[in-house]
Amino acid sequence: MDTIANAITIERAKTSKIDQVDFNNLAFGKVLTDHMLVCDYKNGAWETPKVVPYQPITLDPSAKIFHYGQSVFEGMKAYKDSEENVWLFRPLDNHKRINISSKRLAIPEIPEDYFMEGLKALLKVDEQWIPTSEGSSLYIRPFIFATGTGFHASPADEYKMIIACAPSGSYFAGKVKVLIEETYSRSANGGVGFAKAGGNYAGQFYPTQLAVEKGYNQVIWTDDNTHEYIEEAGAMNIFIRINDTLITSPTSDRILDGITRKSIIEIAKDENIPVEVRKITVSEVVEASKNGSLKEMFGAGTAAVISPISGFGYRNEEYDLPELENSYAALLKKRITDIQYNKVEDKFGWRYKL
Amino acid sequence: MDTIANAITIERAKTSKIDQVDFNNLAFGKVLTDHMLVCDYKNGAWETPKVVPYQPITLDPSAKIFHYGQSVFEGMKAYKDSEENVWLFRPLDNHKRINISSKRLAIPEIPEDYFMEGLKALLKVDEQWIPTSEGSSLYIRPFIFATGTGFHASPADEYKMIIACAPSGSYFAGKVKVLIEETYSRSANGGVGFAKAGGNYAGQFYPTQLAVEKGYNQVIWTDDNTHEYIEEAGAMNIFIRINDTLITSPTSDRILDGITRKSIIEIAKDENIPVEVRKITVSEVVEASKNGSLKEMFGAGTAAVISPISGFGYRNEEYDLPELENSYAALLKKRITDIQYNKVEDKFGWRYKL
Repeated sequence: MDTIANAITIERAKTSKIDQVDFNNLAFGKVLTDHMLVCDYKNGAWETPKVVPYQPITLDPSAKIFHYGQSVFEGMKAYKDSEENVWLFRPLDNHKRINISSKRLAIPEIPEDYFMEGLKALLKVDEQWIPTSEGSSLYIRPFIFATGTGFHASPADEYKMIIACAPSGSYFAGKVKVLIEETYSRSANGGVGFAKAGGNYAGQFYPTQLAVEKGYNQVIWTDDNTHEYIEEAGAMNIFIRINDTLITSPTSDRILDGITRKSIIEIAKDENIPVEVRKITVSEVVEASKNGSLKEMFGAGTAAVISPISGFGYRNEEYDLPELENSYAALLKKRITDIQYNKVEDKFGWRYKL
Repeated sequence: MDTIANAITIERAKTSKIDQVDFNNLAFGKVLTDHMLVCDYKNGAWETPKVVPYQPITLDPSAKIFHYGQSVFEGMKAYKDSEENVWLFRPLDNHKRINISSKRLAIPEIPEDYFMEGLKALLKVDEQWIPTSEGSSLYIRPFIFATGTGFHASPADEYKMIIACAPSGSYFAGKVKVLIEETYSRSANGGVGFAKAGGNYAGQFYPTQLAVEKGYNQVIWTDDNTHEYIEEAGAMNIFIRINDTLITSPTSDRILDGITRKSIIEIAKDENIPVEVRKITVSEVVEASKNGSLKEMFGAGTAAVISPISGFGYRNEEYDLPELENSYAALLKKRITDIQYNKVEDKFGWRYKL
């Protein structure tokens, strides 16, 4: 570990943009920090990562990222506590997952120390960019894409990993209304749905636009074969509370193994909430809504944290969710963010001090 | 049409790379010509296309192409006949299809005259790059990708279309051996499989690598639900000859509407070959191989033209195809390339003179 940490070079930006940023009114992922980490893969190996001023990338027009969608990414956050300590949340899981995604996309895996030491070096340089305002954090975006060239439809021979950061507020403003989708699908059995692959997101934009035109914020995807099973929301995993039981779909080759998702499952169990990780049908949710046993639905993901759902649309019918005083969503969101911001004990060992 | 044709600006390269190219030993899509067409989408409209020297592209690291796979492309070819006339093959169909792909990926559609007049202007400038050696042509790659920035998972507000060209020889050298895939899948019902979307290709690389390690050249994809139906080969549509009947799968939201595919269907009918466009199961093909009625299999696509298949693997068994003297593949390839190179009459009206 020490070797690569010592080898990382740092080129500081001549001027900082930080004074131009209103840290009390942060959008999501729009303002980038002064630096980025860059790590190139050439001649069969990852080169030494370097911290450089945030700057444009120059690529050949035949670079395979433009043609064959060979890219993966991660979403992480850095949090500052009241004593200005900086914390990450389960970052080694992000490293593991980017390699799981990369393998499926025929992208070379990045060694753990390149990823972690590179990330630490970057965050040290841009530490003052980590916001302290309530509900804000530094959103961290590691991404890897094909820079190798040529029009042959085959894996590239060169890649670039970049880690860029954006001080960010909420992903969604307020509660979200979702549409349960039956025409379009997010992923295939044996496909790349479990990976954070770029192409998974582009494919969701058009169906989501159609849903937005109908007054929804997001789509809930169902399986492409029967459209009977709830899968995920594309940028979030989905949790459903029927009576007092919290239900979420098992991960599969179609569903992302969300880090927030699995943390929520553990916290809920710790709170003695009955949790079921099992397939759940749309008709079960509709029936529960009709008979009053559907209490809550919420999305869970790094960007959105926990995003309560106010209602859903299905086959041209609207289903509203009740307003609860003591919701699981509120309880679980407080518990996970308190861990993330170092406000409470972390019995799970998830916090990672920078 | 005239208006945009007259507005296109041309900036010529100061020097040409053409003398460095061995036109008798062309690989596929590796050497790019001196110029490219660039057309930007900004503020809700496509700007005037321009021909510029082939050069690197500079993008912000938060450009959505790097994160969300928002890209589409086309594959076309320009052919030179013995009198140095230049021909395209059904180019308006490529224009239509790139817009079909773009719509599914939430990319703004490109007007026909921007695409066609831009392409013509580019080919006029790089006309000397169109090879005349047997079996060679100028491979043309129009592609559109998201240049708009930000980490929010939503469509970009800016895009770039580029058309780049590469004088090219064969895509495959010789016959190909394929593996009928049952574990991995290419596309979902209601997904983006019918579109030439970048993400469709990256998802195929890893399963194809596994097939290559087993001695195959390509994967034949089956439906993701039952794996019973033959779909396509990712870079080619698939044709199967049982006795004297030529069979190919119908297009769907999972299968690309290939221009070579539909041309082959029309030519075959014109040659009085019995053609069936219908679903075909793997077991039917295996059975036909066992009883000797399976005569031919071949792939069809712009890059590969017609690519005869020498055998296939399925569930750890190998199935060889017979060597035929008068194959449909050879007959159809000769007929379509003779049309493309202006060696015979084109009763279909497919040739497009530059």
